[in-house]
Amino acid sequence: MREVTLKHIAEILEISVATVSKALKDYPDVSAKTKKRVKELAETLNYKPNSFAVNFRTRESKTIGLIIPEVVHHFFSNVIKGIIAQAEKKGYLVIILQSNESYQLEKKQLGLLVSKRVDGVLMSLSNDTVDYKHINNVLDRDIPLVLFDKTAKLINCSKVIIDDRKAAFIATEHLIRSGCKHIAHFRGPLLPLNSIDRFLGYKKALETYDIKYDPSLVYTCNEVTFEEGYNFTQELINTQKRVDGLFAVSDLVAIGAIAKLNELKIKIPEQISVIGFSDWLMSSAITPSLTTIGQPGYLMGKKAFKRLFVEMAKIRKKQPFKYKTIELPTSLIVRNST
Amino acid sequence: MREVTLKHIAEILEISVATVSKALKDYPDVSAKTKKRVKELAETLNYKPNSFAVNFRTRESKTIGLIIPEVVHHFFSNVIKGIIAQAEKKGYLVIILQSNESYQLEKKQLGLLVSKRVDGVLMSLSNDTVDYKHINNVLDRDIPLVLFDKTAKLINCSKVIIDDRKAAFIATEHLIRSGCKHIAHFRGPLLPLNSIDRFLGYKKALETYDIKYDPSLVYTCNEVTFEEGYNFTQELINTQKRVDGLFAVSDLVAIGAIAKLNELKIKIPEQISVIGFSDWLMSSAITPSLTTIGQPGYLMGKKAFKRLFVEMAKIRKKQPFKYKTIELPTSLIVRNST
Repeated sequence: MREVTLKHIAEILEISVATVSKALKDYPDVSAKTKKRVKELAETLNYKPNSFAVNFRTRESKTIGLIIPEVVHHFFSNVIKGIIAQAEKKGYLVIILQSNESYQLEKKQLGLLVSKRVDGVLMSLSNDTVDYKHINNVLDRDIPLVLFDKTAKLINCSKVIIDDRKAAFIATEHLIRSGCKHIAHFRGPLLPLNSIDRFLGYKKALETYDIKYDPSLVYTCNEVTFEEGYNFTQELINTQKRVDGLFAVSDLVAIGAIAKLNELKIKIPEQISVIGFSDWLMSSAITPSLTTIGQPGYLMGKKAFKRLFVEMAKIRKKQPFKYKTIELPTSLIVRNST
Repeated sequence: MREVTLKHIAEILEISVATVSKALKDYPDVSAKTKKRVKELAETLNYKPNSFAVNFRTRESKTIGLIIPEVVHHFFSNVIKGIIAQAEKKGYLVIILQSNESYQLEKKQLGLLVSKRVDGVLMSLSNDTVDYKHINNVLDRDIPLVLFDKTAKLINCSKVIIDDRKAAFIATEHLIRSGCKHIAHFRGPLLPLNSIDRFLGYKKALETYDIKYDPSLVYTCNEVTFEEGYNFTQELINTQKRVDGLFAVSDLVAIGAIAKLNELKIKIPEQISVIGFSDWLMSSAITPSLTTIGQPGYLMGKKAFKRLFVEMAKIRKKQPFKYKTIELPTSLIVRNST
C-alpha cells in the first residue's frame, strides 16, 4: 500500500474519518474505547499523520527554503551545515537549491519555493544578481527572508554578514606589517558586494600606510578558482614588476598562486608573502601553510536560521519587527605563507 | 497579506471558491467571462496555486528527501550537487538532512521525511548504522528509496555504488608496481561496507603480489580526518618499521600523512609513496600533489536521482520493477606522491 490514511482506518473500523481524526487528537467528545481502537490500529498500520494536511490548519509547512550559489564550496557547505543543524533543533526541514551563480535560476527557484509555501527563505545572492525585484516581491508578501554572506545594500531585509572591508584591511595590513611594500590583489568578480568590499579594504590599507595604489597589480578572478590563482601568478611574474605580497580573494585562489610560486621556485614568504580569505580545510595542510582570514561559516548558518525563526514567529503573530543586520567577527589566522 | 488564496479571490468577485478553482483550471462549465475575471484578479494579486493542496489530488509532493552523513565533505557535496541538478530538471525539490554519522539521527530523519510525504528518499548510510529495520519499513510501504555510496549488503533495494574493493586493489597495486614492498594502510572505521571493502582490496593486492600482510601496518581512522593521517604517520614512523608505501582510505587522511612526512623531511615519493582515495579539490594543489582514486560524486548524485525517478514512476503506476545496483567506474589519478 502506498500510504495509510485516516480514511483507511475509518473504513476498517467502520466509523467516520472525523471520528478517527478526533480520536487521534484526544478530543473529549470521542469515547475512550473508540480512541483505544483507533490508536491501536493506527500503530499497527504504521499510520503517519499527513504533514501537508497539518499545513492547512496552522498555515505552516515547517519547511524553509535555502538558495545558495554553490554547494561544493568549503565555506558554503559549512553554512548549510549550520542552517540544517539549527533548523532541525526547531523542527524545520530545509529545501536546498543551488543557483549556480545565475540570477535567472535564482529568480526561478525563489518563485518555486514560494509556490511550495515554505515558511521562510534563506538566500545568498548569485554573482550576477543586480535586479532585486524577485526578492522585494517576496518581502512585500510578508514571507520571511534573510540574506547571508552575499547580500546587497539595496535590499531592505535582515542580513547576516561579515565585515569584508575590515577583514580585507586587516589581511592587507598584516602583509604591510610583515614588510611588504608591493602588494598585488587577486580580486573577486566585479558585482558582488563582498568582492567589492574586499577590494576596497585592500585599497584602504594601502592608503592608510602611504603605499601608492597600482591598478596593474590587481587581477580580477571571475570564477574564483584555483586555475585563476595559478595563471594570474604567472602573468604577474611575467610583468617583471616588483611584488613582495599577494592578497587573494579566497583561499582557493591563494592556493593556486602558491602552487605556481612553488613551481617557479619563488620562496614563500621570503620573496613573496601570500594571504588568502576563508580558511578552507586544506589551507593548513599545504606547503607552506596559508595565512588567511577565518570566516565563521557554521556560525553564519546558525545565526541566519535563528534570525529567520524570529521573523517567521513575528509574521505569524502579525507583530511588527525591524530588520536586523548581524555582523559576525572574522579572525586573522597567521601561518607560514607570510 | 500572508498569502493570496482561492477564498480571497472568491470573496472579492462574490463567486464560490469552487468556481474560482475551476476557472483557473479552465473547466468547460465556467463561462469565458468569469474565467477572464478570475484570471485577471489572480494575476493582479500575484496568486500562486498551493502546492501542498495539489498534493492531495496527485498524491505527489514533488519533493524528495536526502539523508547524507556529512555535508562538509568534498565528495558528498559533489553528490548533493548532482542530485539537486537532476531533481531540478525533473521538477523536484530536495530536502537535505545530515545524519552526522549517527544511526539514531538517521532513523529519526527517515521517519520525519516519510511523515512529510516525500515522494522518495535517497540515502547514504551513517557509519554506525547496523540495524536496517527503519529502511526496510520504508521499502515495505512502497516508498521509493535508493541507497548510494555507503550501502549495506543486507538491504534489498536499488543502490548506486563504486567497486571499492577493486578501486583499493588498483591503488595498492599501483604502489606495488612503483616498487613498494612494505605498504601501510590507514583504513576507515570498522563498520561501513566501503571501508571494509577498501581494506579487503588492499589485502587482496598484497596477496596477489606475494607480499605478506602485516596487521601492524594497518591503522583505523574512526573519524577519517586530517589529524588521524597526521598522527598515525608519526606513530608509524616511531615503530621504526620499514615502510615504503601508504594507502590512505581518503585524500584527507593522505594529506594529513603528507603534512607529517613533509615536517619530518621524509621524501615523497623517494622514501615513501602515498596514495589517497576520492580526489579532493586540493589534492592536486598540495606538495607533492597526491596520487589518488577518482570517485565520480556528481555522476553518482545524478544516477541516484535518475534511478529514484524511475522507481517513483513505477510505484505510482503500480507497475512491478526489480531493484538495480548501478556500479560507477573509478579512475587511478597518478600525480607526484607516488
